[in-house]
Amino acid sequence: MNFNAGPAALPLAALERAQAELLDLGGTGMSVMEHSHRGKAYEAVHNEAIALTRELLNVPETYQILLLQGGASQQFATVPMNLLPQGKSADYVLTGAWSQKAYKEGKTIGTVRVAGTTEKDGKFGRIPAQSELTLDANAAYAHITSNNTIFGTQWDKFPETGSVPLVADMSSDLMWRPIDVSKFGLIYAGAQKNLGPSGLVVVIVRKDLVEGGRKDIPTIFQYRTHAENNSLYNTPPTFSVYLLRNVLDDVKKNGGLAAMEKRNRDKAKLIYDVIDARSDFYGSPVEKSARSAMNIVFTLKTPELETEFLAEAKKLKMEGLKGHRSVGGMRASTYNAVLPEWCKALADFMKAFKA
Amino acid sequence: MNFNAGPAALPLAALERAQAELLDLGGTGMSVMEHSHRGKAYEAVHNEAIALTRELLNVPETYQILLLQGGASQQFATVPMNLLPQGKSADYVLTGAWSQKAYKEGKTIGTVRVAGTTEKDGKFGRIPAQSELTLDANAAYAHITSNNTIFGTQWDKFPETGSVPLVADMSSDLMWRPIDVSKFGLIYAGAQKNLGPSGLVVVIVRKDLVEGGRKDIPTIFQYRTHAENNSLYNTPPTFSVYLLRNVLDDVKKNGGLAAMEKRNRDKAKLIYDVIDARSDFYGSPVEKSARSAMNIVFTLKTPELETEFLAEAKKLKMEGLKGHRSVGGMRASTYNAVLPEWCKALADFMKAFKA
Repeated sequence: MNFNAGPAALPLAALERAQAELLDLGGTGMSVMEHSHRGKAYEAVHNEAIALTRELLNVPETYQILLLQGGASQQFATVPMNLLPQGKSADYVLTGAWSQKAYKEGKTIGTVRVAGTTEKDGKFGRIPAQSELTLDANAAYAHITSNNTIFGTQWDKFPETGSVPLVADMSSDLMWRPIDVSKFGLIYAGAQKNLGPSGLVVVIVRKDLVEGGRKDIPTIFQYRTHAENNSLYNTPPTFSVYLLRNVLDDVKKNGGLAAMEKRNRDKAKLIYDVIDARSDFYGSPVEKSARSAMNIVFTLKTPELETEFLAEAKKLKMEGLKGHRSVGGMRASTYNAVLPEWCKALADFMKAFKA
Repeated sequence: MNFNAGPAALPLAALERAQAELLDLGGTGMSVMEHSHRGKAYEAVHNEAIALTRELLNVPETYQILLLQGGASQQFATVPMNLLPQGKSADYVLTGAWSQKAYKEGKTIGTVRVAGTTEKDGKFGRIPAQSELTLDANAAYAHITSNNTIFGTQWDKFPETGSVPLVADMSSDLMWRPIDVSKFGLIYAGAQKNLGPSGLVVVIVRKDLVEGGRKDIPTIFQYRTHAENNSLYNTPPTFSVYLLRNVLDDVKKNGGLAAMEKRNRDKAKLIYDVIDARSDFYGSPVEKSARSAMNIVFTLKTPELETEFLAEAKKLKMEGLKGHRSVGGMRASTYNAVLPEWCKALADFMKAFKA
């Protein structure tokens, strides 16, 4: 039972499909990894991955879907490199360690400002209300981290930024529920949570932002370079794209994002209900309205109890429950591929452990 | 029989190992893709891949080995971003399309100059002699492409650049024979030829260059960021690193790079001998001293003959023999994982086709 925060559990069907055809993609006698990225066999996979992303998220035609490398951490740099011209400023809303990193990297490139933060004594236990944000109406963009893997918080409704493009790091948030893509200027997500293996980042970006992006940066970092070449400007990470295809195909076969959202909310409720019913024993450092359906953070009363909890969980073959080293406590990540029965087993174990 | 230029054939043993443990890495019950990059199981793989690179190439301790993303095309940008300060210039030797691309990307970042070119009527059929190079003794570095995938040329002996660090794109050249790493300041190689799947780039860089690198660039693009974090600053492409480990383990088991070089030279000779013995039928656009042991480029007399050649080869299950669209003709890529019997079969077919 894999509760890792990322890289995380992948759908068994997607992995089994990869295993079955690892040496022979569709009767070609070659692994997908051995195919030319300019050949028909790979191109079909590549285009299917993009088409499934568009279909499942209902991405408007006015948006480009890019498959890139370098992870979300590289997007921390390439977003301002492309979208933040000299003389302009960009807004960052800070809700955790990843938005702090994005903000800090933005500083290396241009003028960035904090348009809101929920930091308190070095921790972030909530998501700001719209009224708390001090947004710059002339900002090049406003950046949020839509789910905070480390602190276990998640934006339920996204902020209104008027005509300023909303940019969201959705690494641990994309593809677990339907979203209205048209609310965003740019969405990026490292694949290793709900999408596929690490080494791939999905970028969904409004075409006018691509076209208006800066041209005084290296070719390889311009979104237009990849947009104009269907993400085949240089060799893409072909196996990672292939796995993305397998994962999205599995999501579709299981009812798409509406079904996925119901399943995920039910999974999270199983665990949060145990925490709430035993609040004398399990602590929740997160404001209820900000609770993440992807990363469920909770604490026990003493370090000894936490150690014992992890040891007992390990005996039950539950992995990845230790909280991030920067915040401590426990964390159960319950992405799409984490099975409902694992969440049920964890909830039952939490009850038994308290008893 | 996979003669693709890249992504290319991978060793069957490396793929079979991946297939066998795709759902369960070393009895952990999880795929390597599902493991945390901070966990013991993945870290062992990661460190073994780096250690095997060091061992097989005999990399001195004064060099850092980095496992990065973005391919060689991203290195075209990050090499000058790190190593080319304002007020300095960098030398580029042009021997083909990839060195032209590296030079062009360098221009977007700083002052670069051409220190030699073998271009003639838009084509590159040879490698320059040392005497042809006009090297700047004050250059920040001198850049070469050590093997030219498209034109089928390869540096046999590398140029002398004195105290100027030699930087080499070895994407289609690394790990097929022993090299003296100490001759270089920095080597980079996209994995998808002799190393593993696409989506991974190996950088071997002198530690003093890392330390002296520019600090006024985004954190994610600084070599020091990755050097200080053992290439675990952000989530690495874990499956690609795992495959690199499998491939290098296979190279080691097959006798290391000395054995690999003999095998590769024998393979290339099989094909070049047919070309030379039938020079009234097969043309070689490459000067003999510059012939690549990795990419064997040859021509036939007419487009009709070339079409027929490819059609007959396809019947024999030979893939990837069509030359690059920019130069035409034929190209057989004979990387490490291309079996000697495939090269023998191709040579035999070439004889029969002429007959």
